[in-house]
Amino acid sequence: MAVERPGFLEDMARRLAVARGDEPADLVIKGGRVLSVFTGEFLEADVAISGRYVAAIGRDYQGRQTIDAGGQVLLPGFIDGHMHLESTKLMVDEFARAVLPHGTTTVVIDPHEMANVFGLDGVRAILAAADAVPLDYYVMVSSCVPASPFESNGATVDADDIERFLREEPRALGLAEMMDFPGVVAGSDEALAKIQAAYRTGDRHIDGHAPGLSGRALNAYLSAGVRSDHECTTYEEALEKRRLGMWIMIREGSAARNMEALLPLVLQLGPGNCLLCTDEREPDELVSEGHINAVMRKAVALGCPPYHAVVMATLSAARYHRLHRHGAIAPGYLADIVAVPDLERFEPSFVLKAGLMVAKGGASAEIPKASAPDWMRGSVRVPTLSAQSFQVTANGRVRAIGVEAGQIVTRSLVVEPRKSNGVALADPARDLAKIAVIERHKGTGRVGVGFVTGFGLQRGAFASTHAHDAHNVVVVGVDEADMAAAVNHLAAIGGGQVAVADGRPIAEVPCPIGGLLSDRPVEEVAEAVRRMEEATRGLGVTLPAPFMALSFLALSVVPELKLTDRGLVDTVRFELVSLEV
Amino acid sequence: MAVERPGFLEDMARRLAVARGDEPADLVIKGGRVLSVFTGEFLEADVAISGRYVAAIGRDYQGRQTIDAGGQVLLPGFIDGHMHLESTKLMVDEFARAVLPHGTTTVVIDPHEMANVFGLDGVRAILAAADAVPLDYYVMVSSCVPASPFESNGATVDADDIERFLREEPRALGLAEMMDFPGVVAGSDEALAKIQAAYRTGDRHIDGHAPGLSGRALNAYLSAGVRSDHECTTYEEALEKRRLGMWIMIREGSAARNMEALLPLVLQLGPGNCLLCTDEREPDELVSEGHINAVMRKAVALGCPPYHAVVMATLSAARYHRLHRHGAIAPGYLADIVAVPDLERFEPSFVLKAGLMVAKGGASAEIPKASAPDWMRGSVRVPTLSAQSFQVTANGRVRAIGVEAGQIVTRSLVVEPRKSNGVALADPARDLAKIAVIERHKGTGRVGVGFVTGFGLQRGAFASTHAHDAHNVVVVGVDEADMAAAVNHLAAIGGGQVAVADGRPIAEVPCPIGGLLSDRPVEEVAEAVRRMEEATRGLGVTLPAPFMALSFLALSVVPELKLTDRGLVDTVRFELVSLEV
Repeated sequence: MAVERPGFLEDMARRLAVARGDEPADLVIKGGRVLSVFTGEFLEADVAISGRYVAAIGRDYQGRQTIDAGGQVLLPGFIDGHMHLESTKLMVDEFARAVLPHGTTTVVIDPHEMANVFGLDGVRAILAAADAVPLDYYVMVSSCVPASPFESNGATVDADDIERFLREEPRALGLAEMMDFPGVVAGSDEALAKIQAAYRTGDRHIDGHAPGLSGRALNAYLSAGVRSDHECTTYEEALEKRRLGMWIMIREGSAARNMEALLPLVLQLGPGNCLLCTDEREPDELVSEGHINAVMRKAVALGCPPYHAVVMATLSAARYHRLHRHGAIAPGYLADIVAVPDLERFEPSFVLKAGLMVAKGGASAEIPKASAPDWMRGSVRVPTLSAQSFQVTANGRVRAIGVEAGQIVTRSLVVEPRKSNGVALADPARDLAKIAVIERHKGTGRVGVGFVTGFGLQRGAFASTHAHDAHNVVVVGVDEADMAAAVNHLAAIGGGQVAVADGRPIAEVPCPIGGLLSDRPVEEVAEAVRRMEEATRGLGVTLPAPFMALSFLALSVVPELKLTDRGLVDTVRFELVSLEV
Repeated sequence: MAVERPGFLEDMARRLAVARGDEPADLVIKGGRVLSVFTGEFLEADVAISGRYVAAIGRDYQGRQTIDAGGQVLLPGFIDGHMHLESTKLMVDEFARAVLPHGTTTVVIDPHEMANVFGLDGVRAILAAADAVPLDYYVMVSSCVPASPFESNGATVDADDIERFLREEPRALGLAEMMDFPGVVAGSDEALAKIQAAYRTGDRHIDGHAPGLSGRALNAYLSAGVRSDHECTTYEEALEKRRLGMWIMIREGSAARNMEALLPLVLQLGPGNCLLCTDEREPDELVSEGHINAVMRKAVALGCPPYHAVVMATLSAARYHRLHRHGAIAPGYLADIVAVPDLERFEPSFVLKAGLMVAKGGASAEIPKASAPDWMRGSVRVPTLSAQSFQVTANGRVRAIGVEAGQIVTRSLVVEPRKSNGVALADPARDLAKIAVIERHKGTGRVGVGFVTGFGLQRGAFASTHAHDAHNVVVVGVDEADMAAAVNHLAAIGGGQVAVADGRPIAEVPCPIGGLLSDRPVEEVAEAVRRMEEATRGLGVTLPAPFMALSFLALSVVPELKLTDRGLVDTVRFELVSLEV
């Protein structure tokens, strides 16, 4: 790490006095069974805490405050090794309020959605807002902003920006998932410049993102110093990557769930080089299922020894990210401590973060209010649209994006649209809807229009500013007036999600902070997300998680056919293509 | 690490091209079975090397040069996690020549002997001399120089010196063994200032040294951020330390050998948090037994799974020391590769260091000559002594140091010396010899005189400038004229070891570099050490490893009675005591 963690040096003398027993601890947890992540033993001992750190594990410590753990197991705070805060739609304080009761005390975020809107100033603002929040937010600086030259995003992040950010921000651990793995493998100047920027700034490192990468290309990727992957979907893939030194982040997100496929790696070879992450998780799931504890629960349910599940969620994540004061309950480590009645459910009865009680019985303590600066609002800059904005003419057949459940890849289809006076129209009877992407960062009013099939939409429209990676406005509709109403409504509320029928919004999830994050409490956001799901069902949508699917339809680096504000992109040939065939 | 390792960034583009197969490798090892330290698998694959690094593990790579490993196992280069170069008496080039054929490619040295003579300039000179040597010398900066206020050494190293050194020297990994564990535990200003200096300089860390430390004191020591211990002698001690997060360095030195006692920790709990070190190893043993490979051999002979022995000698040592390019054969790692025919003997058939062939069939390649600057010579500054220099008067009984085989602790005895005209004399018949320590850094001529029993010396004298930690001249003799001749000879040759009979040197190991290191080839030094052993046997010495014992008799921080140039030190009460009781 670039510098020591707050309080470690400053409080050293007092912490030692507490360990010696010469001064009372600030807090002593008695009656717990401390899991040593270094040996797998359960230690029946007091935990003496001084300031933000554990001072000692031992007998008969005295403290100003005492907690009786009543025979429960004490675990180190859980760590999410890789996630996008924006997927939760929660601001930093509300995210903490959502996950602290589940035992998460540290997250390593890649806020590349925010970076696509505001550049690294957006990331700085998020970190600044998190200053007073009792959850450790570390950041990997976004490596691929914009994701491709076809995307019109809000800002560009180049190698110099990355280097400056890493030098200035002690919470920055390195370079976020290097999604441009073809660029790295090919040795492109831009990709290597970013990697070198990260390694030039000292003890920083590099997350990978390389679905299916294998053989020589994988070797090249690793030769550049990329260290991890959270995109493994099969045992064989993960095994090849681990044997070459890669850290395997086993991901259980709201969409991508890989524990079942990857757990055999842990069962057969031990938990070495494996850690846990969620990548993307919806707010309603955070509330109902949990966070990293839900991932541990699933691992154990599938046969993982609980000790190994804990090690992956704590020590291994800390070691991978070089967070030397995290990941264990031991002297000199942060007093991030989770008390659980059992090692199956991992439902904490209380949670300490840096020595403070932050959650009890599933409820969070009061979290200081975090706020975003005003300039992060009003970021959806779109001129008022009308039905005409989405009209396209076509003489013959047109390309259509084929969406399938649970896939972010799409098929490139050719269909005969319904037509009226040479204008190509949606056709709900054949599940053919219109889709549009509207540039929203610079107010250019640029609109790309196409067709999409797979949602099952029968009436109205729905739209979102969660649209990887440029996070423009993406809208799907069978009625062009409803599409215009949806986009206009998002512009009015500053972004988020909306469903429209008969010209009026019927459900919304406002995300006024950059069009990505809500400023409302987690319960409210989770409820809005549930209502939105119902509303789209009411419009006929049959596709599971339609907004998740929607959010990937503008991502021009995933096969086969995608749409940006510049038009349709054949992402296999990596070129713009016309609507008409 | 503070900066990337040489060549990693510079050669990245070409290394990727090699991995892709677009350019020929500099070297390809074919026909080997690569042990993956991440999974324990043996991979039948080529190893393609580009510059100093591994580019790829895979099939059908082409190279400008090819080696056929003939079915042998390929292991990462071995790492000694903690050692004192001065114990080998070898200069950096000759040490490399001695250990490279045994598979050691990286050592983490604590040159605190040199620091006691020259301060950190001595350490800088050693590292500068190692620049062209194909073995990685990393350094932990000495934490306790001088070891105590009773010792007259050549230089003092304070917290500011430590911080400056760590900021300037990229090969410095942190603070060396914090021997002043009572000071750390008590929270002494000086000890904490040194620790804080290390942690202020970024990603540096701290080696421990805490024999027998347990319970609250151990917790306090760890609370200060000390991370390892190489002084464990029992399973119980190592278990307590490991469960609290300490990294256990299993030591097999020439004197202290702990593998047998500590291996159960590995057998029962796995190799996690364990690594290997030698601490101190004599040159003749390096030649005859080996180095870290000898430690691995012993582990396997005692029942350690070979994979675990390898992990402790490679990946774990690298991870402990945060050497992120060391410890594995994998893309992006240094091409430090050891080929062995079996995993029992660990006798390499060839060794690569950073892609270069540095040893074959037990013989080192030619190593560039390393030289010490002239100011490191002539450091034994002692006025010409005579028999009178060692005369002491005594009316009654005197204190004597009781030496025992294989122990660095001594007993504090009281004996009746032989006397002649009120002068107290040695008495070989009762195994009572005289011992003296002569200040040799500033030329003060200060001599401390005492008595010692346990060597079995019958005639003559022997002397050494290897005398922890101040490295003054220490001499033991039954004849005062021979004692003077021994000291005068060491002053003349600039230090080392000498045995004297009838006024003349009968064996010597010259160590003109700081009185600590030889400038001769390893074979010659090993042979001189063997002859010295014979010579002292010829003088009647019965104690095994008499020079090893001698080197600890001036160390004023180990119980019970020691001698410095200022006189006898009761190291339990930590005060000077008179010779006469």
